[in-house]
Amino acid sequence: MQTDDLILISVDDHVIEPPDLFDGHLPERFKERAPRIERGADGADFWTFGTTRIPNVALNAVAGRPKEEYGIEPQSLDEIRPGCFDVHERVKDMSAGGVLGSMNFPSFPGFAARLFATEDEEFGLALVRAYNDWHIDQWCGAYPGRFIPMALPVIWDAEKCAAEVRRVAAKGCHSLTFTENPAALGYPSFHNAFWNPLWTALCDTGTVMSIHLGSSGQLAIPAPDSPPDVMITLQPMNICSAAADLLWSRVLKEFPDLKISLSEGGTGWIPYFLERCDRTFEMHAGWTGQDFGGKRPSEVFREHFLTCFISDTTGIALRHDIGIDNISWECDYPHSDSMWPTAPEQLTAAFARYGVSDDDARKMTYENAMRWYRFDPFAHVRREDATVGALRRSVAGHDVAVHARSRHAGKSQAERAAEFNRFMLAQRDDEPVAG
Amino acid sequence: MQTDDLILISVDDHVIEPPDLFDGHLPERFKERAPRIERGADGADFWTFGTTRIPNVALNAVAGRPKEEYGIEPQSLDEIRPGCFDVHERVKDMSAGGVLGSMNFPSFPGFAARLFATEDEEFGLALVRAYNDWHIDQWCGAYPGRFIPMALPVIWDAEKCAAEVRRVAAKGCHSLTFTENPAALGYPSFHNAFWNPLWTALCDTGTVMSIHLGSSGQLAIPAPDSPPDVMITLQPMNICSAAADLLWSRVLKEFPDLKISLSEGGTGWIPYFLERCDRTFEMHAGWTGQDFGGKRPSEVFREHFLTCFISDTTGIALRHDIGIDNISWECDYPHSDSMWPTAPEQLTAAFARYGVSDDDARKMTYENAMRWYRFDPFAHVRREDATVGALRRSVAGHDVAVHARSRHAGKSQAERAAEFNRFMLAQRDDEPVAG
Repeated sequence: MQTDDLILISVDDHVIEPPDLFDGHLPERFKERAPRIERGADGADFWTFGTTRIPNVALNAVAGRPKEEYGIEPQSLDEIRPGCFDVHERVKDMSAGGVLGSMNFPSFPGFAARLFATEDEEFGLALVRAYNDWHIDQWCGAYPGRFIPMALPVIWDAEKCAAEVRRVAAKGCHSLTFTENPAALGYPSFHNAFWNPLWTALCDTGTVMSIHLGSSGQLAIPAPDSPPDVMITLQPMNICSAAADLLWSRVLKEFPDLKISLSEGGTGWIPYFLERCDRTFEMHAGWTGQDFGGKRPSEVFREHFLTCFISDTTGIALRHDIGIDNISWECDYPHSDSMWPTAPEQLTAAFARYGVSDDDARKMTYENAMRWYRFDPFAHVRREDATVGALRRSVAGHDVAVHARSRHAGKSQAERAAEFNRFMLAQRDDEPVAG
Repeated sequence: MQTDDLILISVDDHVIEPPDLFDGHLPERFKERAPRIERGADGADFWTFGTTRIPNVALNAVAGRPKEEYGIEPQSLDEIRPGCFDVHERVKDMSAGGVLGSMNFPSFPGFAARLFATEDEEFGLALVRAYNDWHIDQWCGAYPGRFIPMALPVIWDAEKCAAEVRRVAAKGCHSLTFTENPAALGYPSFHNAFWNPLWTALCDTGTVMSIHLGSSGQLAIPAPDSPPDVMITLQPMNICSAAADLLWSRVLKEFPDLKISLSEGGTGWIPYFLERCDRTFEMHAGWTGQDFGGKRPSEVFREHFLTCFISDTTGIALRHDIGIDNISWECDYPHSDSMWPTAPEQLTAAFARYGVSDDDARKMTYENAMRWYRFDPFAHVRREDATVGALRRSVAGHDVAVHARSRHAGKSQAERAAEFNRFMLAQRDDEPVAG
C-alpha cells in the first residue's frame, strides 16, 4: 500500500477544551458556578472549579514542538497549536497528518470526568450533559464524518450514567470514556452489581467503553526519584491490569455484547498476555471456578476487546496472534507519543517491513474503527477525498510547527525532569491539585 | 532436538525450608530466638519468629497434586512432596523431571529476607549468614553440580550486604536474591547512592542480582473482589516495573558489569518492552537527559538483564527480538505454574513449533544459565549423565504424585477463591501476618 492511499481513522486523540465550552450548553442557573479558565501571573492557564484548581491545562500538548521542549509544559493555550482547542484548526491539522477521522478524549475533567462528581449531583449531571452536548453537537458536529463522538460518564451513579449513554446514543454517540479501575477511584469495582445498569445500556446501544491508560488515578512510578522515562515506559502496560480484571470478571459472562477499547494500551504485549490468560485458565480454572462456556480466555478477549497502537511494530508483526479484527491505529494528537504529522509514512514503512497485506492494513487503519465505533465517515466524505494523499492536498501549505517559545527553553534537563516527577507524583491520586 | 537429549538447568525453583534449617549454623547465643516451625490445632504448619507468625509454610507447593486441589493450600509439610524440603528427595524429583541443575529461592524469609531485618542487627545478620551457610554448604553442597547456590541479602544495610556477597562468593555463590523495588519495602530506592557498596560487590564478584516477581510486597490486585485469576495473570508483567526502573537508572551507567535476572518474569512481553524503551528514548531523551553513551536502551538491556520463562511460547517465537543470550528456562518447582515433571516434553514441542535450532535450544535450556551464574555442573556430572533421558533413567519408577489428601478437597470453589483473595490481600505489604 502506498502512503497516499492509506485511509486513517484514529481512535485516540485529545481535545484541550476551549474556554467557551459551557456557553450555550449549561442551564442558566448553573452558569456562575461552571469551571472556567484563568491565567496566572506566570502566564500559565488553569481551570478553576469551586475551590479546585487544575493546572497544566495544556499538559503534554506538544504537537509541532521540537522534542527538546517536551516536559510538563506547555501550560497555556497560547503556547500550543490552535488545533488542540479550535475545531476548524483541528480538522486542518488532521488533514495535514492524513487523518480522516478522530476520537477525542477529554482533558481537564479527567478521563472519567471525576471532576464533575460534586456534592450537588444535579449540577454535576448538568456539567456532564453540557460537556457531552458541546462535544458531540458542536465539536464533532462541525465536521460530519471527521470525528467519532465520545461521551463523558456520570461516574458516581450507574443509573444516571446508563441514561446518559442512552441519551447520547440517540444522537449517534457510541463511545463512552471510562476509568480502567473504578475501585481505585473510590467507586465500586467492576465486579460489583452496582454497574449492571451501565453494562445494560452499553450493550443495548452498541456503545464501546473506551478505557484510556492513566484513567485509574494510579501512575506507575516505582519510586519518587525514578527518572521520568520510567513512567513514560510503563504507562501502556498498566492497562493490562484493567484487561485482566474485566476479562476474568462475571461482567463479560453476563453481558456478552459488551465492547471495551484499551485506549493507548499498545498491542505488542497482547500475544503474551493472551497466552498467559489461557495458561492461567488451563492451570487454575479447576479451583478458581472460571467457566467461559467452553471458550478459552483468548477467544473471549477477542469478542470484547479492541486494542490500539500508535507505533509498535511488535504488535504489527504479531497482528494475527492478537486478532486482526481487534487492532486499531491511533494518532494521540497532540501528545508527545504521537507521530503526527508523519504517522502515514511510519505506518507504511512498518507494514512493508512485516509484509502486511492491504486487507490487514485496511482493518488496522480504519475498518476496525468504523465497525467497533459504528462510525461511517463515508456517509459524509467521498472515499476519494478520504485518503492520506487527498487530505494532505486539501490543506497544502498548512504550517505544522509551533512558533510560540516554550517556557522550557531556558530550563536545564535536570530541572525539567524534577518538575515532571513532582507534577506526576502530585497527580498520583488523580485528584485535581487544590489551589 | 529429542526430548531425551535436552539438558535442563532451571534458574528459578523454590525450597520450602526444613525445620532443622538453623541447626549447626547459628551461634549458640541466638539459638533460642531462631525462627521455628509449629503446627496449629488445624494441622497447618507455620513459622514463628518473635511475635511474628508466617502462615502457609507450604504455600503453593502443589507439585504432584491434582489441579483441582490448588489454592492457598497445602499448609503443612506432610501435605507436600518431601522434595520441597528434603534435598535427597529434591534431587530425585529433579531427575524425574529431567532437570540437571536448579536455583532455589527462599520461602518463609521472603525473597528479600525482610523477615530478618530485626531491631537486633547483629542477630539479623547472624540469621542471614546461617541461612546462607545452610543453603550453600548443606543444601546445595549435598549434591555438587545439581544446584546453583543463591544467597539472601542483608536488606537493611548495603555495606553488610556487600560483605555478605563477598563472603558467599568466596565459596562459589554467584546469585543474590533481592527485591524488585526496595522503595516499596521502605528502603532507599534503586536510585539512591545508599546501594553503591552492594553494586560494587556484585560487580567485583560476578554475582547476579536475581529479582523474583512478587518481591516488592506489592501484589497486582485491582480490587479486593477481583477473581484470583486476575492476580495470577498479572504477576509476571509487574516485574517490568523493576526492569524499567533499573534500565533508566544511573546504576547501570555507573556499574557496567552489573547483572540482573528477572526471575519468573516471563519473556513474551520483552520485545514490546524494548521497543517501548527505544521509542521513549527517541522521543524523550532530548528533555529527560538520558544518555547511554551512544547505545539504545534495548542494547543496554541485553548487556545487563537475563530474562526467564517457564512456558511462554511467544517468547520462544520472539527469542531473537529478546536476545538469544538473554533467555533462560525455569522450572518453578514446586509451585503451581511449574510444568514439572513434563516440562521437557512441552519444551521440545514448543521448540519444534517455532523451528528453534539446537544451538538456540541449548542456550535457553542450560548454556545461558551456566554463563550468567558462573555455574559449571560438568565439573561434577558427566555430560552423558546430564541429559533428560539419562537423569530420568537414573530414577526410574520414582513416584511423582502427592498422595496426602488436601484439606481443600472438601471446600467449594467459591470458598477456595475467597480464601485465596483474603490471604493475598493480607500479604499485600509483604508483612508477615502477626500471630
